[in-house]
Amino acid sequence: MTIRLHEYAPSGNCYKLRLLMRFLELPFERIGYDILKGETRTPEFLARVNANGRIPVLEIDGQFLPESNAALYYLAQNTAYWPVDRFAQAQALQWMFFEQYNVEPNLATARFWVRYVGVDALSDLQRQQLPHKLEAGRAALKVLDQHLSARLWVVGDSLSIADIALYGYVHCAPDVGVDLNDYPAVAAWGGRFAALPAYLPISA
Amino acid sequence: MTIRLHEYAPSGNCYKLRLLMRFLELPFERIGYDILKGETRTPEFLARVNANGRIPVLEIDGQFLPESNAALYYLAQNTAYWPVDRFAQAQALQWMFFEQYNVEPNLATARFWVRYVGVDALSDLQRQQLPHKLEAGRAALKVLDQHLSARLWVVGDSLSIADIALYGYVHCAPDVGVDLNDYPAVAAWGGRFAALPAYLPISA
Repeated sequence: MTIRLHEYAPSGNCYKLRLLMRFLELPFERIGYDILKGETRTPEFLARVNANGRIPVLEIDGQFLPESNAALYYLAQNTAYWPVDRFAQAQALQWMFFEQYNVEPNLATARFWVRYVGVDALSDLQRQQLPHKLEAGRAALKVLDQHLSARLWVVGDSLSIADIALYGYVHCAPDVGVDLNDYPAVAAWGGRFAALPAYLPISA
Repeated sequence: MTIRLHEYAPSGNCYKLRLLMRFLELPFERIGYDILKGETRTPEFLARVNANGRIPVLEIDGQFLPESNAALYYLAQNTAYWPVDRFAQAQALQWMFFEQYNVEPNLATARFWVRYVGVDALSDLQRQQLPHKLEAGRAALKVLDQHLSARLWVVGDSLSIADIALYGYVHCAPDVGVDLNDYPAVAAWGGRFAALPAYLPISA
């Protein structure tokens, strides 16, 4: 199996895939695009890699798979990172959809605007949306904190792709001024995650 | 198996589950909540049904499963609506994540604001966001239209939960003034979907 990761390195969505492939000891090639320069919106990228103009895209033996959490699902099949039980599988997906609906559009978009685009370069509408995104991101962290208060990992009692999916952007919350110590169960879970033997940081 | 659907009937996310359970001939009980009256944000709902305060929630023998697409996954296991091939499974999830990231927050949110909340009751920020949501919804329809231009169904050559997930809100686009005839492959696919023998409309 030849794997290529089409990515923008600072993206938490791309980091998720690097994490899982590291945990699985799968070798892969990294192909970088600068999204600030529109490199994922070129006619070539849209025609060949992803018609939706987004990264990450996992390329497996020449087949292209967009959507970070779909790629996590693919890679995790028949490994310890995907639950065996049908209901637990559905719960893993529940938290992965929660991540893409409640966490990513809030904490990740806010981080992209503040840290990569820059507050001065935002449109008036984006500037107005920013506090609402931070508020919604905090609400999502509260839901996750409550869930993690009585457990070590998001689903069942072992690490799964639900944890990897959530870790990608949750651990970046301090980039937009959100203190994870306000969410002690999330902070403790993040500490367990970062202590995993094969862990690597988003900057790696 | 005793199934209860905790729902707000006009929601396309809830409709998806009614469609699949109809296709599978699974009996279920419907429990309605008026989201306009905050009935999914009560302490009772948050404590018992979904800490994230959202519907649909599928209740299976007393276990609660939020997130419409996770519930579709659960119900579709070992049926014709879930692909057998691992890559095709990941592609089904790819389109289901696309649906929740690119379709739902745009077309569904715009529909909720325009048709249920009412334009006069929107905040200034919501009113400013509305044209951007319609534009992003149209961009998502364009991606789907291109994908469907050479195929009958979203993944492989048979109906799957990826079609059901997308149909839920795509077919409501006219509610916000988007003419699906601008997306001929989407319109043809919607026609095939509505002609399925067990089809039922969102109002049923």
